[in-house]
Amino acid sequence: MISNLKIVVLAGGVGGSKLAVGFSKVVIPENLTTIVNIGDDFEYCGLRISPDLDTVCYALSGLANPETGWGQRDESWNCYSALDRLGSPNWFRLGDRDLATHLERTRLINEGKTITEITSIFCNKFGIKSKVVPVTNDLVPTIITTKEYGELSFQEYFVKYQFAPTFIGLNYRGIEKARPADEVFQALKTSDLLVIAPSNPWLSIFPILDIPGVREEIKSKFVICVSPIVGNKALKGPAAKIFMELGIEPNAYEIGKLYKDLARILVIDKQNEFEKEKIQAFGIIPLVTDTIMVDEVRGAELADNIIKQFRLVNKG
Amino acid sequence: MISNLKIVVLAGGVGGSKLAVGFSKVVIPENLTTIVNIGDDFEYCGLRISPDLDTVCYALSGLANPETGWGQRDESWNCYSALDRLGSPNWFRLGDRDLATHLERTRLINEGKTITEITSIFCNKFGIKSKVVPVTNDLVPTIITTKEYGELSFQEYFVKYQFAPTFIGLNYRGIEKARPADEVFQALKTSDLLVIAPSNPWLSIFPILDIPGVREEIKSKFVICVSPIVGNKALKGPAAKIFMELGIEPNAYEIGKLYKDLARILVIDKQNEFEKEKIQAFGIIPLVTDTIMVDEVRGAELADNIIKQFRLVNKG
Repeated sequence: MISNLKIVVLAGGVGGSKLAVGFSKVVIPENLTTIVNIGDDFEYCGLRISPDLDTVCYALSGLANPETGWGQRDESWNCYSALDRLGSPNWFRLGDRDLATHLERTRLINEGKTITEITSIFCNKFGIKSKVVPVTNDLVPTIITTKEYGELSFQEYFVKYQFAPTFIGLNYRGIEKARPADEVFQALKTSDLLVIAPSNPWLSIFPILDIPGVREEIKSKFVICVSPIVGNKALKGPAAKIFMELGIEPNAYEIGKLYKDLARILVIDKQNEFEKEKIQAFGIIPLVTDTIMVDEVRGAELADNIIKQFRLVNKG
Repeated sequence: MISNLKIVVLAGGVGGSKLAVGFSKVVIPENLTTIVNIGDDFEYCGLRISPDLDTVCYALSGLANPETGWGQRDESWNCYSALDRLGSPNWFRLGDRDLATHLERTRLINEGKTITEITSIFCNKFGIKSKVVPVTNDLVPTIITTKEYGELSFQEYFVKYQFAPTFIGLNYRGIEKARPADEVFQALKTSDLLVIAPSNPWLSIFPILDIPGVREEIKSKFVICVSPIVGNKALKGPAAKIFMELGIEPNAYEIGKLYKDLARILVIDKQNEFEKEKIQAFGIIPLVTDTIMVDEVRGAELADNIIKQFRLVNKG
């Protein structure tokens, strides 16, 4: 059954995009807005690359590569091979079709368009009916401080070094001056429910929440957060590793602690059921379910489950 | 027989690259320098594209597409198709492998390298043993004034409008302040023979000669020019059309007139043999031969022919 709730999803890359796809199956597409992190945006060979935005758009349009979680399906690598031959640093893999997205984005930025306008154009061309909105039109690059290399740009940390370096801390450069895109406020103001996707808190969600004005706007909303920690691991990426390097045990309780001022409900995996009481102690309602979205059906089930729980709690 | 002459070829795109390949077969590669026009360089989607440089390098490395005269052989077009889907202007066709050249060039420019240094790196990676030198490290974009559209950038005129608009005039923007690359002077000073390839005079050769200092340096050299007009046509591109739009009959005599202060010998095609006397009247020695380089063998024969004629005249 298709819900007519107006839903905003805050998302990073793979986990976020999967839940966004899930919601796109169970709500009226026009009522769904995915607000996406742009802290991992960077420039490469003169091109503006927005990995999280692309992951979300590719997922929503059915273009995503289900095996890698990034890039497009049925991709070819002829440009990448030729780059390799030229001796170009090859740690960031650019597929031939994926490249077109970066080229056209760069062309439109050079024409004076904002990243929000460009994303809207791309959604239209990709046939995406729901809204995808970058959190800001400003540049807010996430800088990771590591034990081994000092400061690294996000993509160096994440892709070049495969998040092997020890995480000490991070900052979202320029965030104090950044302004949320108008469409962010618009979506938040009209939404019934805000969902924080199972994305990395530090690398995907806080760079959204910490844009001045966003947290305040969200405080009045009904917020449901999906824990990115399953058992004591992250399904993808360095969330659990970062927890440990910060001296914190990676578990659902710690996720609850990070979001306790915002979330009314925390969706935790069955593997974390034993943490229910500790989460309740924050004043958060735990929803225990299967959070692993192995395919789109499971993503839609999770989205449906979240909506049902929202209706239950919101009525009561 | 391989000559040990030191030869400099001034070249634009296709015609120039064919003659450069011809010379690369008949001289010691290290003794050959091709000085290339960069007036057609432009920025596209944030990338620095140098069409003539690429045509020359692809030709010398055997990567060139023999059918189109531009781009690489065995090229794929997946990025281009994806760009088309995104609604990007599609008049400039970027092949997947070709794109790597533009990406890496842009990356190296952003690192602070000059176009001369980058071309040298590319030659090395492509296995080119002769030297390829862009005439300047400055930007000197050729701007075409047309009857129909007013001023057009070179690629708009040449690729987007397929040189259909009526040519009124042109300028090499910024040329008065441009400086030849050091390697240009170096090659000219040590060369025995300078060859002006059968390239478009206004679009390929004058943007080289008109860089301050180049013409002066060349005046002391033995110069042989190959006419780009065969019969009353250009084999490729708008040379003959431009002649006519300027109210001049396209023929070898008019090419002689353009180069009469520089050239000792003008190589003309058999179809233009009847113009011999008129060319001699300029004080230029006409060399009548088959100038159409249908393949590399014919290019090498033409190069060999030019060397023989040089030895003959230079001894006498």
